[in-house]
Amino acid sequence: MATQRITDEAPQKPKYTTADNDEDYRESVEMMFESKQVPSWQNQLTLRAFVVSLFLGILFTFIVMKLNLTTGIIPSLNVSAGLLGFFFVKTWTTFLSRSGLLKQPFTRQENTVIQTCVVATSGIAFSGGFGSYLFGMSEIVAKQSTEANAAQNIKNPQLHWMIGFLFVVSFLGLFSVVPLRKIMIIDFKLIYPSGTATAHLINSFHTPQGARLAKKQVKALGKFFSFSFVWGFFQWFFTAGDACGFKEFPTFGLEAYRNKFFFDFSATYVGVGMICPYLINVSLLLGAIISWGIMWPLIEDRKGHWYPADLSPSSLNGLQGYKVFIAIAMILGDGLYNFLKVLGHTLFGLSRQIRMKKPETLPVEAGQSSTETPSLSYDDERRTQMFLKDQIPTWFAVAGYVTVAIISAATLPHIFPHLKWYHAAVIYIFAPVLAFCNSYGTGLTDWSLASTYGKLAIFTIGAWAGASHGGVLAGLAACGVMMNIVSTASDLMQDFKTGYMTLASPRSMFVSQIIGTAMGCVISPCVFWLFYKAFNNLGVPGSEYPAPYALVYRNMSILGVEGFSALPKNCLKLCYVFFAAAIVVNAIRDAVGKKRSKYIPLPMAMAIPFFLGGYFAIDMCVGSLILFVWQKLNKTKADAFGPAVASGLICGDGIWTLPSSILALAGINPPICMKFLSRKTNTKVDGFLGS
Amino acid sequence: MATQRITDEAPQKPKYTTADNDEDYRESVEMMFESKQVPSWQNQLTLRAFVVSLFLGILFTFIVMKLNLTTGIIPSLNVSAGLLGFFFVKTWTTFLSRSGLLKQPFTRQENTVIQTCVVATSGIAFSGGFGSYLFGMSEIVAKQSTEANAAQNIKNPQLHWMIGFLFVVSFLGLFSVVPLRKIMIIDFKLIYPSGTATAHLINSFHTPQGARLAKKQVKALGKFFSFSFVWGFFQWFFTAGDACGFKEFPTFGLEAYRNKFFFDFSATYVGVGMICPYLINVSLLLGAIISWGIMWPLIEDRKGHWYPADLSPSSLNGLQGYKVFIAIAMILGDGLYNFLKVLGHTLFGLSRQIRMKKPETLPVEAGQSSTETPSLSYDDERRTQMFLKDQIPTWFAVAGYVTVAIISAATLPHIFPHLKWYHAAVIYIFAPVLAFCNSYGTGLTDWSLASTYGKLAIFTIGAWAGASHGGVLAGLAACGVMMNIVSTASDLMQDFKTGYMTLASPRSMFVSQIIGTAMGCVISPCVFWLFYKAFNNLGVPGSEYPAPYALVYRNMSILGVEGFSALPKNCLKLCYVFFAAAIVVNAIRDAVGKKRSKYIPLPMAMAIPFFLGGYFAIDMCVGSLILFVWQKLNKTKADAFGPAVASGLICGDGIWTLPSSILALAGINPPICMKFLSRKTNTKVDGFLGS
Repeated sequence: MATQRITDEAPQKPKYTTADNDEDYRESVEMMFESKQVPSWQNQLTLRAFVVSLFLGILFTFIVMKLNLTTGIIPSLNVSAGLLGFFFVKTWTTFLSRSGLLKQPFTRQENTVIQTCVVATSGIAFSGGFGSYLFGMSEIVAKQSTEANAAQNIKNPQLHWMIGFLFVVSFLGLFSVVPLRKIMIIDFKLIYPSGTATAHLINSFHTPQGARLAKKQVKALGKFFSFSFVWGFFQWFFTAGDACGFKEFPTFGLEAYRNKFFFDFSATYVGVGMICPYLINVSLLLGAIISWGIMWPLIEDRKGHWYPADLSPSSLNGLQGYKVFIAIAMILGDGLYNFLKVLGHTLFGLSRQIRMKKPETLPVEAGQSSTETPSLSYDDERRTQMFLKDQIPTWFAVAGYVTVAIISAATLPHIFPHLKWYHAAVIYIFAPVLAFCNSYGTGLTDWSLASTYGKLAIFTIGAWAGASHGGVLAGLAACGVMMNIVSTASDLMQDFKTGYMTLASPRSMFVSQIIGTAMGCVISPCVFWLFYKAFNNLGVPGSEYPAPYALVYRNMSILGVEGFSALPKNCLKLCYVFFAAAIVVNAIRDAVGKKRSKYIPLPMAMAIPFFLGGYFAIDMCVGSLILFVWQKLNKTKADAFGPAVASGLICGDGIWTLPSSILALAGINPPICMKFLSRKTNTKVDGFLGS
Repeated sequence: MATQRITDEAPQKPKYTTADNDEDYRESVEMMFESKQVPSWQNQLTLRAFVVSLFLGILFTFIVMKLNLTTGIIPSLNVSAGLLGFFFVKTWTTFLSRSGLLKQPFTRQENTVIQTCVVATSGIAFSGGFGSYLFGMSEIVAKQSTEANAAQNIKNPQLHWMIGFLFVVSFLGLFSVVPLRKIMIIDFKLIYPSGTATAHLINSFHTPQGARLAKKQVKALGKFFSFSFVWGFFQWFFTAGDACGFKEFPTFGLEAYRNKFFFDFSATYVGVGMICPYLINVSLLLGAIISWGIMWPLIEDRKGHWYPADLSPSSLNGLQGYKVFIAIAMILGDGLYNFLKVLGHTLFGLSRQIRMKKPETLPVEAGQSSTETPSLSYDDERRTQMFLKDQIPTWFAVAGYVTVAIISAATLPHIFPHLKWYHAAVIYIFAPVLAFCNSYGTGLTDWSLASTYGKLAIFTIGAWAGASHGGVLAGLAACGVMMNIVSTASDLMQDFKTGYMTLASPRSMFVSQIIGTAMGCVISPCVFWLFYKAFNNLGVPGSEYPAPYALVYRNMSILGVEGFSALPKNCLKLCYVFFAAAIVVNAIRDAVGKKRSKYIPLPMAMAIPFFLGGYFAIDMCVGSLILFVWQKLNKTKADAFGPAVASGLICGDGIWTLPSSILALAGINPPICMKFLSRKTNTKVDGFLGS
C-alpha cells in the first residue's frame, strides 16, 4: 500500500474515512463475512490474481512514470487499483460461474493480494528514481549544470544495469520489517490510515450492496477513462513539432504563457487535482504565483547584475539556478522539520509504549487496550487469530536480509564503481532501524519519509566518497538504496494491516509483495526505457517530460559534495530565507491546530512550481473546482464517484502514453501543428508562407 | 411574428405545441385572466415597452445580421424575445412596485406589444437583404463574377440610401393586409402556428406558475448567454490574422478542413442547431457530404477539362460556378415546387371557404365552425369581442397604402436609376394580392414564401429592364421591394393572431409594428454599416463573413437578365439534374405522408452547404446531438429549457459581435494567432523563425 506522495513527501492526510470513524459498524464486519470461508494462504495466491496484477501493474507503471517525468506529483492510485482489480476478476469469475467452470470463488483475500501486488509493482516506478536520483545520473541532466558534469559523474540509463540495481536493492526492505509485523499490527495496533482505508474498500466490495456501488463506480471510471484516452489521442494530432498542440495553449495570453501560467488541457492533472486535497492545489498555485509571478520576473530584471546576461536559459549559474536551489532549500527545510517531528513522535510513542506496555494509538483503539487483556472484540479476535495462523519464521527473514545484503554489497560497486562495498555495508547496518522508524511513522501519520531518508544518504555517503572520487554518483546511488529499503518496508507494513483487516494471510501478503516487487523491477525500467527512447528530449526543461526532480536530486548531490560554490549571486541568501520560511510555516501549521492549519499552505507543495511553473497547478485547481462545484450540487454523488472519475481521467491519459510512445518509436509523426504566434510573428510567417 | 426562416425558405414546421394540442385546457385561459383588467390600447403602448423593445431590437438585429452574413440560416428568435422582454419589464415593474412607484402593472398585452415590436425590428434585418439582394449589389460581390460587373451594375452600400430605401418599402406590407385581419383571424380562423405558440408563451408567463418557470428559463438563458459571450471573447484573442483561431480548427484533419469539414466552435450555430428540427440539420450535413465530400472533389479532378485550370478559386467560371449555380438550381426547384403547392392550397382553401362560407382549418377548429354560429367558446367570444373593439378604418389603410406607394414609386428611381417608376407601380398593383397570398399561406403552414416572391420579382423586373439598362440592379431592387412587402404583411398577420389570443388590441399591434419597423429601418442599416466598416473582408468567400446569399441573389439576377452564357461546361446539365431532383424529392416527401417524410431530407436545406461547406452543419448537428442526449436523459427538462439554452448561446455570441466590431473599428487587434500548419509547413516555419 502506497500513500499518496510527491517525489518529495508532503503531509497529505488520506481522504478516506479512517478507522476511528468506522468503529461504530466495525463490530459487525467479520460477522457479515462469517459464512464465507477463508481460503488457505496458497489458495489466496491464484494465477488469475497475478495475471490481473501484471496487467494493472503495467498500466499503473505507465501512469506513475508519466507523473514522475512531468511533475513528480503522484496521487494515491489505490482506489483505482482496488476498483479495477475487483472489476477484472469479478467479470472473469462471473463469466466462469455462468458457464459452470468456476472452481474457486473470488474472495476479498484474493482482492487484497491483487491490490498488494499492483501497488508493489507500481511502487517501484516511484522508488526506482526514474524521475529523481536514477535519471539524475544521466548526461542530459548533468549537462544542465556547469558543475560536476565530467564523465566520472555521469551514468546514462541502460536497461540491464537498472534492472540489476533494482533487483539487488528492492527486496531488502521486505525482509527487514517482516519480523516486526506482530508488534506493529497487533501489539501496537498502529492505524496505517491508507491500509485501513483500502481494507474497508475491499471489504465493502464483497458485500452485495458494495458490489453494486462498485459496479457503478467502475462504469464512471470507464466512461472517463475512454474520454481521457480519446482526448489524449485527439490532442496528439496537433503536436507536429515543438511548441505545438494543446499543451502550449496560451489560455491567459502570451505573456502569462511565457511565465508558465496557462491551462494545458491535461486530463491527468485535472484528475490528480480532483484526488489531491484542496490545500495542496492551492499551495501549488500560491507557489507558482510567488515564484513565476513575482520573484523570477524581479530577478530577471537584475540580469547582468546578479548573474551573467549571456548564459543559456537552462544554465544553473543563471535564473535557472535561483529556481532550482530556492526550491531545494524549501524542500530541505520542510523535510528537516518533518523528519524531526515524525522522529520525535516515533521516539516518544515508542518510549511510552515500552514504559507502559500499552499501545499509543487513537482513543477508541486505545480503549480496547493491549493484547494481554482478554476483552477483544469479535472482529479483532478473529483477525488476530487469522493473522497469527500463518507464521513467517524470524530466522527466514534474518537469513533473507543478510543474504540479499551480501549479494547487494558485492554487486553494487560493479554497477556504481564509486559506491564502495563498505558504503553499502554501512547503509545495510543502519537500514533496518530506519526502515522500522519509517514503518512506525507511516503507521501513525500515513506519511512515508522515504525520500527524506534518501536525501540523508545523499549527503552522508556523497560527502564520505568525496568530490574527487565520484561522490555525486555515489550519493545518488546511495539515495536509491536507502529509498528502496525504507519505501518498500513501509509499503509492506501497510499491506499487512490491509491483510489483517481482510483476513488475508501474512504469508500471501509477503509472497504477493515479493512477486509484485519482482515484476516492478522488470516493468519499471522497461517502461522508462520506452519513454527514454520514444521522447528524445526527456529531461529537458520546458519539454513535455522535464523530469524536474532529476535535476533537483542531482543538484542536492552536487551541493552535498562540492558545497555552495556554484550558486549565483544572492542565491544562497534567498535559499536561507526560504529554508527558514519552510520551517516557520510548518511550525505555524502545527501551532494553530488542525482546524486553522488547513488555511495555511504547505511549503513542500509550494516548492514544486518554483522550477516547473504554474501550468499543472492550474490544471489541478481546475480539478479542484470541478469537484468543489460537484460537491455543492450533489455531495453524496461527488463523494461516491469523484475518485472514480478522477481515476478514469488519470488512467485514460496515462495509458494513452503507451500508444503515443509506440507511435513515436515507429516514427509516425502527428500531421498538424497547432501553433500560437504573436500578431507580429504571425504577420512575418504569413509573409514567409505567402512568398 | 416571424417564422423560423432560411434566407430561402424551408418548410420547417414550428416545434411549439400548436393550437389543437392545447385545445383541452384552452377553455379556461380567459377565465384565468378574467380578474385582470385589459388596459386600453393607448395604455398597452407604454414607454417602457418601447425602451425595452429598442434595446432588444438592437440585440436581435446584431444576431440576425451575423447570421445573415455567415450562413443565412436564421432560427426563430421569438422565444428569446418573449423571455427577455418579460424578464426586463418584470424586473423593472417588480423593482418599482417594491419602491411603491408602480403606476401601471405589467400585462400580457404589453408583453405582446414588446414581442411584436422586437420581431418587427429584427425582421427588417432579414427582409432588408443585407445578406442577400442589397449586399449583392456591391462591388465586392460583383467582382466575384466575370459577368455584369460593370459600373452600371454595381451599387455599393451607403448608409443614407439604405435607410431611405427601407423606409419607402417597409410600410407598404402593413397597410396592405390590415383590412383583412377580421377575415383571416376571426372568419377563417387561420392557425398561424408561430403566432399561436407565442401567444401561449406570453399567456403562460402571466400565470403564477408560468412566471416561475419563465424565471428559471431566464436564468438558464442568462447562464448560457454569459458563457457564450465569454467564449466569443476568449476566441477573439486567438484570431490575429487570417486563418487564425478556433474558426479554423481542423477538427477532423487538414484534408477534411480543406473540404470545409470541421467543427468551428461557434456557439451560435450550436444553439441554432438546438432550435432547428433534426431533419434540417441532417439535411444540411447530407448536402455537405454530397457536395464537398463527393461532387466538388470529382469536378476538381476535371480541372483543365471542364473549366480552365488557371482561374482564381473564387471565379464563377471555375469550380465556384458549379457550387453557386447548382445550389441556385436546387433552391429554385424547391421554391417552385413549394410556391405552386402553397398557392394551390391557398386557392383551394379560399374557394372552399367562399363556397361553403366556412373556414378551412384543422379539424378541431373547424368543428367550432364559422362566426355565424352562436356556439362560441368563452375564450373565443371574449377574444373576438376584444379584437373587434378597436377598429382600424379601411379608408385609413387604403389611403396609407396609396400614399406610401406614390411616395415610394417616386423615390425609388432616385435610389436605383434603373428601376423605373412604372416598374415600382406594377409591383405595387400586384403586391397586395401576393401579400394576401403569403399571409394566408403562412396562416395555414407557418411558412413565409417572402424570398420566393422576391425571386419572382428578380426574374420578371430584371428581364423587363433588360441587360443593357442595368437589369441586374433593377432585378435586385425589385426583389427587395417585393420581399419587404410580403414579409412584413405575413409578420403583421401573425402578430394579429398573437394579439387576438392575448387580448391585445389590433390598434396597439399595428402601432407597435409600425414603430418596430421604423426602428428596424434605422437600426438594421447602422448595424450592417458597423459590420461593413469593421470587417474589411465582408462578403469574401472563405472569410469570417462570406454573406453567401449575396452572391446567390446576384447570380440569380444575372441569370435572369443575361441567360446561361456564364456557366462553365456541364454546369447547366448538372443544374437541370438538381433542379429536377429538388422537385422530385419534395414530391416524394408529400407523397409518403407526414410520418415517413421526416426521414427524407429537405432539398432547400441541402443546397445551403453546397457553396458554404459543411462546417456550420457540423456545429448544428452538435447542437442536435446535445439536445438529443439531453432529451434521452430528461425529456421534460430538455423541452422546458432547451430553447432557453439555445437562445442564450445564440444571443451571447451574437451580442459579442458588437464589442468585436467596435474593437475592429478602433483598430485594436487580437494579440495571438492560433495557427494550424501541416507538419511540413511547420518545419519550414520553425526554420524561418529560428534563423
